[in-house]
Amino acid sequence: MNKFSPLLQQLIDALRILPGVGPKSAQRIALQLLERNRTGAMQLAKALAVAMEKVGHCQQCRTFCETDLCAICSDPRRSDSQSLCIVASSSDQFAIEQTGQFKGRYFVLQGQLSPLDGIGPAELGLDLLQKQLGTGSVQEVILATNPTVEGDATAYYIAEQCKKYQVNVSRIAHGVPVGGDLEYVDGTTLSHAFSGRKPI
Amino acid sequence: MNKFSPLLQQLIDALRILPGVGPKSAQRIALQLLERNRTGAMQLAKALAVAMEKVGHCQQCRTFCETDLCAICSDPRRSDSQSLCIVASSSDQFAIEQTGQFKGRYFVLQGQLSPLDGIGPAELGLDLLQKQLGTGSVQEVILATNPTVEGDATAYYIAEQCKKYQVNVSRIAHGVPVGGDLEYVDGTTLSHAFSGRKPI
Ligand SMILES: [Zn+2]
Ligand SMILES: [Zn+2]
Repeated sequence: MNKFSPLLQQLIDALRILPGVGPKSAQRIALQLLERNRTGAMQLAKALAVAMEKVGHCQQCRTFCETDLCAICSDPRRSDSQSLCIVASSSDQFAIEQTGQFKGRYFVLQGQLSPLDGIGPAELGLDLLQKQLGTGSVQEVILATNPTVEGDATAYYIAEQCKKYQVNVSRIAHGVPVGGDLEYVDGTTLSHAFSGRKPI
Repeated sequence: MNKFSPLLQQLIDALRILPGVGPKSAQRIALQLLERNRTGAMQLAKALAVAMEKVGHCQQCRTFCETDLCAICSDPRRSDSQSLCIVASSSDQFAIEQTGQFKGRYFVLQGQLSPLDGIGPAELGLDLLQKQLGTGSVQEVILATNPTVEGDATAYYIAEQCKKYQVNVSRIAHGVPVGGDLEYVDGTTLSHAFSGRKPI
């Protein structure tokens, strides 16, 4: 035996797609699930398959959801807002929502400009954003992209678009540690970053 | 939005069954799979479902496999051996196989005696082991349970059974660090532990 049984080895190999899981921990996870939690593992299998098949993007804000419009875009108290907050990912959106500070709408880029990785304006849905800016329904754009090279480039690119349509544009500022990842910032710091935003 | 979309939240919750995965990393994994590796995640879903449904235990040695007999038990060069090595888990068995030192058969307990957790002789298949000892086909038992309280108790329990059937019994010794987990010991140390085994 140089290997486990074919199906067990297949499971160990498949677990390697999880971030941070090497061969040793894939083996540990597989055996632990077989030994102690087959029911949980079956539920995980179903949840994975269903999510990968059904979860798409909100047609308006591009956040992950399985309906045409997400909960925020279909909530009239939010969708009528003329403030639009632009974030790199659904988890950044979630982090801002947790502060309870922002009551407007979002636009979720699902990435940031990175020409070397083939991520340009089209990949970030910036044509869709431009259409929304063109309707005159947006009066203020708050840029909450990450304080990284890509996040900066993305913010400046969108700021230019906003100026073309005479939409006020600002970028969250205070407290977000430079080089850090928005998703891991605590709520208070994020609240401050929101109130301390400056025009760019 | 206090939550992600229902299907996404369901996936995040389901990922929590993985060892060492808290709410924050479950969220990170779910979003990363949706963003970057839906194909891999679908394969993982299938591998999980198939393994949980089909992988059972070898009828002779109790290791994890999807057939009646595992690869070792159905290999005549191994199954005719009169040496039986007893291990706590399939991963311990795998670790010993990797040393290439042992050419006999195994018996995989899938646990160790732990009355407080409700793990007694029946849960470890010790009735099946006793039957095998009773046939006279086993001349030597090598105990490779972990050097922990439960592993010691298990070793002594099985040693008593062996003595009843006049089967030679020894326990691997050298080099396995006390309180450690067999699965993480390097091959050389395990080889030494095998050669240095002593009767108990
Ligand atoms: Zn939306
Ligand atoms: Zn077997």
